[in-house]
Amino acid sequence: MLRTILTRRSVRRFTTDPVTDAELRDLLRAAMQAPSAVDERAWQFVILSGDVLASYLDLNGNTPRGAPTGILVCCDPGLEKVAGYAVQDCSAAVMNILLAAHAKGLGAVWTTVFEDHRPAVRALLGIPEAVVPFAFVPIGRPAARPEPADRYDEGRVHRNGW
Amino acid sequence: MLRTILTRRSVRRFTTDPVTDAELRDLLRAAMQAPSAVDERAWQFVILSGDVLASYLDLNGNTPRGAPTGILVCCDPGLEKVAGYAVQDCSAAVMNILLAAHAKGLGAVWTTVFEDHRPAVRALLGIPEAVVPFAFVPIGRPAARPEPADRYDEGRVHRNGW
Repeated sequence: MLRTILTRRSVRRFTTDPVTDAELRDLLRAAMQAPSAVDERAWQFVILSGDVLASYLDLNGNTPRGAPTGILVCCDPGLEKVAGYAVQDCSAAVMNILLAAHAKGLGAVWTTVFEDHRPAVRALLGIPEAVVPFAFVPIGRPAARPEPADRYDEGRVHRNGW
Repeated sequence: MLRTILTRRSVRRFTTDPVTDAELRDLLRAAMQAPSAVDERAWQFVILSGDVLASYLDLNGNTPRGAPTGILVCCDPGLEKVAGYAVQDCSAAVMNILLAAHAKGLGAVWTTVFEDHRPAVRALLGIPEAVVPFAFVPIGRPAARPEPADRYDEGRVHRNGW
């Protein structure tokens, strides 16, 4: 497991091979095992593929193309028990998706949905006004897998005080 | 790895057995392998133990007692390349700490540092004003390990539209 965490890298180039429904379900199961503020689970997930995915990518130039599918993670403030914590819930869920994908030999990358783009994303997908498209994770088989990089920085570690 | 994600639970009761420096380093290494917005890594970590940990717990009644140590994860907006993304960076780092702890047989739980408590936490630990104490993760050996719970909810999954 530690090895999975240490060797995971963002994957931005994909083959055209499909991702199965069972694989997506495993990733979503991993996402929903994330902890959340007082177990509120203030998240929603939209699987994108085909023409809808293509339209989404046209709206978000920052997202790598080429993956056959992906998961749009949305914050649902209507589910919050503690105001303002949905971003943390959803970030934890995204992290689990990325790790589960890597563990299964899939590639994925955390891309943001910029605030400016959210109205168009809502319109494209029929997402309720109160729900916030938060992050999109393209998922596919890696065309190239970046080498692991050790990001440990002792300078960020403090002991019993700054 | 998927099993580690699926079986992880929040641990709130700990034995008095110590956690080694090597174990803590592994958890911090895992934390810093998290992705961050344009790789900004807007995080800092403070290891708490002994009297300092006891004083921290006196300030934060919401945090379970009994763990011999823990990691305070702080957002450092001064390191942000994209304003406002440190919370996402730090949430991903916390998720990796929780998974790495579980993988190593340790117990951990994500506790929040409430805004009201932050000035006192900064004063206790000498944390710079610009740095935000974000989450504290107590770490120890589980006195009780909760049974895995399947949180998958098909109702949160949408396909190519709401």
